[in-house]
Amino acid sequence: MIKVVIFGNGNVAIQLTKAFLKSKNVSVIQIFTRKNINDFFKKKNLSVIHDFKHLKKADVYILAISDDAIPEFSKNIPNNKVLTVHTSGAVAMGDLNTQNPKGVFYPLQTISKNKKIKFKKVPFCLEAENKNDLKKLQKLAKQISKKVFIINSEQRKKIHVSAVFVNNFVNHLYAIAEEICVKNNIPFEILKPLINETAKKISKISPKQAQTGPAKRKDEKTIERHVEMLEKEHKKIYRLLTESIQKMDKNKF
Amino acid sequence: MIKVVIFGNGNVAIQLTKAFLKSKNVSVIQIFTRKNINDFFKKKNLSVIHDFKHLKKADVYILAISDDAIPEFSKNIPNNKVLTVHTSGAVAMGDLNTQNPKGVFYPLQTISKNKKIKFKKVPFCLEAENKNDLKKLQKLAKQISKKVFIINSEQRKKIHVSAVFVNNFVNHLYAIAEEICVKNNIPFEILKPLINETAKKISKISPKQAQTGPAKRKDEKTIERHVEMLEKEHKKIYRLLTESIQKMDKNKF
Repeated sequence: MIKVVIFGNGNVAIQLTKAFLKSKNVSVIQIFTRKNINDFFKKKNLSVIHDFKHLKKADVYILAISDDAIPEFSKNIPNNKVLTVHTSGAVAMGDLNTQNPKGVFYPLQTISKNKKIKFKKVPFCLEAENKNDLKKLQKLAKQISKKVFIINSEQRKKIHVSAVFVNNFVNHLYAIAEEICVKNNIPFEILKPLINETAKKISKISPKQAQTGPAKRKDEKTIERHVEMLEKEHKKIYRLLTESIQKMDKNKF
Repeated sequence: MIKVVIFGNGNVAIQLTKAFLKSKNVSVIQIFTRKNINDFFKKKNLSVIHDFKHLKKADVYILAISDDAIPEFSKNIPNNKVLTVHTSGAVAMGDLNTQNPKGVFYPLQTISKNKKIKFKKVPFCLEAENKNDLKKLQKLAKQISKKVFIINSEQRKKIHVSAVFVNNFVNHLYAIAEEICVKNNIPFEILKPLINETAKKISKISPKQAQTGPAKRKDEKTIERHVEMLEKEHKKIYRLLTESIQKMDKNKF
């Protein structure tokens, strides 16, 4: 049985706890929250603590708290020689200020409050200071996910910035298209099958191979017609991404 | 029975023909191609012609040819008083140079050679010079799709440029992320669940509401850390899209 303590009461804390509660091999022995007890924790009769003096020993302490809070908060964790991990994509393992052995347990997915997460398909990026702790994290992650990766802090930084491109920026392009549709009395719904197909397509071929469109074809006529009809802000984005597609086409990576 | 002639032997011509062949209420009476007879047309024993003098009357002539070829090619179609449509998102209805009544029959989807298209879910954007012809196109489109929209040439232009954002540009952001992964020995596969979730998320909430990330939160520390680790070209894109997210946040649309 792997004993864990979860620190935090946000989305990641709740979703991870839910997943662990379903696993036979993991026991959530305590929840540490600063203040508000989340309803979910109450309902499940979990042992909720607010003070480090009540903290029990465990196999893993999991800090599911906000990125900025990690360095300060981790200072206060007593040295129980318990593997202490955070769940952030953006924070280095070394930013944990603790004498406990350190690690990272990062689920790579957008995690919202009300949406159920199927952790089985969520990639977990793991890191630890030593091999045994890494094995422990692998064992723990495999209880809830089928996709477990060993990723160092440098790589994790790169994954985090890549995730901004494929999640935040992609979503913003959807929002721009929505804005164009709304302003022209076109139901945005009309674009959704294309959006799905675009995401699906790269499950089989690489995005570089999947590239199509006027930029890729160097169809300058269409490019100019498009730029003309766009608003100032959107023109800039259109031009820069068109250029970037054409440059990538020349370079191999 | 709706009688159609398909002009062209590319992906759209073949995929539309396949879909019509499955419908009880549509008859593909001829295929017009300039040269190569596509194997598919041969196999199906379709009547393939290469000369306008053999062209029969029909209910609809469907030009599934390249955008650039539409104005020139359409000049040569004899005036049979047959509703003549093109299948392009980027070409105005008026660019059909024919005395025949005109229309547009535009399936909004990326159509590749080898990938089967389920037209049922593909939005069809229809336009015609008069109401009766529009009804005829609606009837035809409904034989193969459940998503039929009446869209004028102005709106279609806007849809086409929106499609570049959600298809070509989104795919390019995937390609940038892939490049970052490859250069850092990270399996690109790790980002695929996030990519799928990002596309899925907007089926229920609007992209503007779905926006998350450092730009949205105005988390300048993370933004600067990200910009620092990117290559020159990617820095520019990161900055511009971050700015654009923050501007959109201020404006309503």
